Amino acid sequence: MAQRVVVIGGGGGGLGAAGGAKAVDPSAQVTVYTEYEDVAYSPCGIPFVHGKEIPSFEALFLAEKQAYVDAGIDVHYETRVSSIDRANRTITVDGEGTVGYDSLVISTGFVYADPGVPGAGLDGLYYVKNIRDAMEWDKRLDTVKKAVVVEAGPLGIEMVTALAHRGIETHVIDPNPWCLGELLDPDIAEVVQESWTELGITMHWNTTLLGFVDNGSGSVGGVSTSGGTIDCDLVVVATHKQPNNALAVAAGIAIGTTGGVIVDETMKTSDPSIWACGDVCEIPHGNASLPLQGLTGSHAYAQGKVAGANAAGGSRVYNSVYIPWGMVAGKWMIGGAAFGEVAADALGMPYVLGVAEGISRARYYPGVKKVKVKLLAEPGTLRLIGAQMIGGEGIKERADFLGVAVKKGLTLFDLATMENVYSPPIGALNEPIAVAAQNGVAASRSA
Amino acid sequence: MAQRVVVIGGGGGGLGAAGGAKAVDPSAQVTVYTEYEDVAYSPCGIPFVHGKEIPSFEALFLAEKQAYVDAGIDVHYETRVSSIDRANRTITVDGEGTVGYDSLVISTGFVYADPGVPGAGLDGLYYVKNIRDAMEWDKRLDTVKKAVVVEAGPLGIEMVTALAHRGIETHVIDPNPWCLGELLDPDIAEVVQESWTELGITMHWNTTLLGFVDNGSGSVGGVSTSGGTIDCDLVVVATHKQPNNALAVAAGIAIGTTGGVIVDETMKTSDPSIWACGDVCEIPHGNASLPLQGLTGSHAYAQGKVAGANAAGGSRVYNSVYIPWGMVAGKWMIGGAAFGEVAADALGMPYVLGVAEGISRARYYPGVKKVKVKLLAEPGTLRLIGAQMIGGEGIKERADFLGVAVKKGLTLFDLATMENVYSPPIGALNEPIAVAAQNGVAASRSA
Repeated sequence: MAQRVVVIGGGGGGLGAAGGAKAVDPSAQVTVYTEYEDVAYSPCGIPFVHGKEIPSFEALFLAEKQAYVDAGIDVHYETRVSSIDRANRTITVDGEGTVGYDSLVISTGFVYADPGVPGAGLDGLYYVKNIRDAMEWDKRLDTVKKAVVVEAGPLGIEMVTALAHRGIETHVIDPNPWCLGELLDPDIAEVVQESWTELGITMHWNTTLLGFVDNGSGSVGGVSTSGGTIDCDLVVVATHKQPNNALAVAAGIAIGTTGGVIVDETMKTSDPSIWACGDVCEIPHGNASLPLQGLTGSHAYAQGKVAGANAAGGSRVYNSVYIPWGMVAGKWMIGGAAFGEVAADALGMPYVLGVAEGISRARYYPGVKKVKVKLLAEPGTLRLIGAQMIGGEGIKERADFLGVAVKKGLTLFDLATMENVYSPPIGALNEPIAVAAQNGVAASRSA
Repeated sequence: MAQRVVVIGGGGGGLGAAGGAKAVDPSAQVTVYTEYEDVAYSPCGIPFVHGKEIPSFEALFLAEKQAYVDAGIDVHYETRVSSIDRANRTITVDGEGTVGYDSLVISTGFVYADPGVPGAGLDGLYYVKNIRDAMEWDKRLDTVKKAVVVEAGPLGIEMVTALAHRGIETHVIDPNPWCLGELLDPDIAEVVQESWTELGITMHWNTTLLGFVDNGSGSVGGVSTSGGTIDCDLVVVATHKQPNNALAVAAGIAIGTTGGVIVDETMKTSDPSIWACGDVCEIPHGNASLPLQGLTGSHAYAQGKVAGANAAGGSRVYNSVYIPWGMVAGKWMIGGAAFGEVAADALGMPYVLGVAEGISRARYYPGVKKVKVKLLAEPGTLRLIGAQMIGGEGIKERADFLGVAVKKGLTLFDLATMENVYSPPIGALNEPIAVAAQNGVAASRSA
């Protein structure tokens, strides 16, 4: 009889798991449950449709529902799983009753942290997540004059720019002293924020959310903060992503310090018949074995493939993460890998710093952009422990490289002597990564 | 008394050497001799001014002559060095007589290979090199109707596109079966050449140059080839770059199989008081210790800094090269590192191949471009031995990464499990390098 692989969640992790299971065992009976109307769209694209960089929501759909039928994956849409019975290896599905599994993959994603303030039930509070909801909110954005974004994390950064592009008077409040304050170094943030000022965005740092204010008819009319009240007719609530762990917790599966499901290197949970992947679980950081949670869709998808393959009898391993990251922020791209100065300082980790401001093409070639690179390395060995960057192009590719460089133990000496492509339209004489490394080596000698 | 460091050549290598010497010994008396009117401009930018991508030649100048005066570097312009007397440590300088040195750096660059056919003395044969000449040729291009580019090497590829952008009917002849035939894999070349066809360029492959045809008044009126005569009113002679080794040969300095000056890892020649750098010397390839010659301006500059530093008493090392490379070709960027299939086949080197066609941003994000990645790895270990790529963006940064990956011995396993940035405007869910590596691992298992 075909083995039954059940996946809870239809996001990148869940669909990665379904595909991973089918790849290992094409005869497996693979069922995916999702509470939503759709699978296989890119929620990461929503802010850019709001900002009119992408012309329509339809573009965000990656595959037709028929594609999953053709792949032999049985997707149950708008279907909630209400509990897991580990002893009997069953789940309870609303409207379907009890469903058995041989292997279960939990990929229930994230929920936004509850802001925990009065007024959370008002109309006009937008939690960016589901595409059908986003389509409705997008129509409403045409009528919005003034908006407040709560928290300048990754989603908040994208939404701030999107609203400003939309011509909406945009404010952002955040308890940190600058954007992405728990991750981003202040010298990088400063440049981003200059470009926000150019876009007309008003920033309220070191500012705590106290409540949402009723406009008198049940909709939001303002945001109450530690710095006073900001009038508005829409709020984007972009609080931290937390693991959507309710099902796992209720089932008694082990949960880590971040609230994420604990998994081993095969993505298996504390129950040998249950795997987890994506935002619902936590993953050790490669530098320091810190548990991390709330990574990217790319991580979720890759974890899903491993979890699904193993759930179907495979033996794949998911490595510790070094988290190359990157995004557009204002008119810049920002990115990095592993630790910047803020994270290293918070962990009490000593480091040598190498910094360079370079350019992306020959100085005289049209479209040339600034590229600033900061490299952090372990004193003595000069082994790379992280990087942060801001620039106009090539940030994602450099972040990918530096993520591998941290993972493989490359040093500033390795990077200082790297060769680089020099061709006026695509690369400058001196690669900023190499110059930053040379400066770091010099700094370590004069220290 | 201050040591006398003499540099012959004012290109990237020579100026790198002058700066490298001053950095090690600020009191050194550093003199640079150049036959040209200028130093510190970017000859690599010339094709792009011809193609009107860059508005003027003035943009190509990197520094004022005063900058070298201020740095204590004495540049003698339009001054030819006619011989080196190693026994007495002197050189003979036209118009200056005998000049002594403590350390000498030879950075005399390249000459184009003599096409060795009749008609080489005609007017209308353009060898792209000197910026003052280029300014004159650029005016002439306004009157040119039809041009032939001889050889589709790196410069030929850039000039073909530049002439077509200029509205000139452009032909290219080359003895190889496709462009960059000794380096580029045919599947990559095919895509480039499709875009040349779109640009209206006529290609003549497997075609040997037989002579330049006189138009009856001492100017070129056509190119005689193994495939017939092509009428034209201008020829760009883009033959191979050969080491400009005449001074070194006459002085009895050891020369290698490529014609380049042999240097050790400190860039020292067979004479312990003489260093060399840039296109005049040959450098061992890291994969196979093959000597290579005719690399990039970035290599020349880096070699110059090492040669100059050591000439002034320093102790720096220049590593073997793995040659990340990249350029614009037609409407694409092409690039790679170390060996592609053509080079590996020519060397009889076995390899596992991993190929992926991916994209540079989210599929739905405006400006998304194709990125094709080919990875070659040693059978068994799957250690990376090279890469080739074609795409619309991010080729230079990926080539730099893969050059380091080859040098540091990374494997397809390492690249298959690399993390990558996923953010719709700047990076796709799946990085093409990772997918190519995954495909290579799969190919090695089914082999």
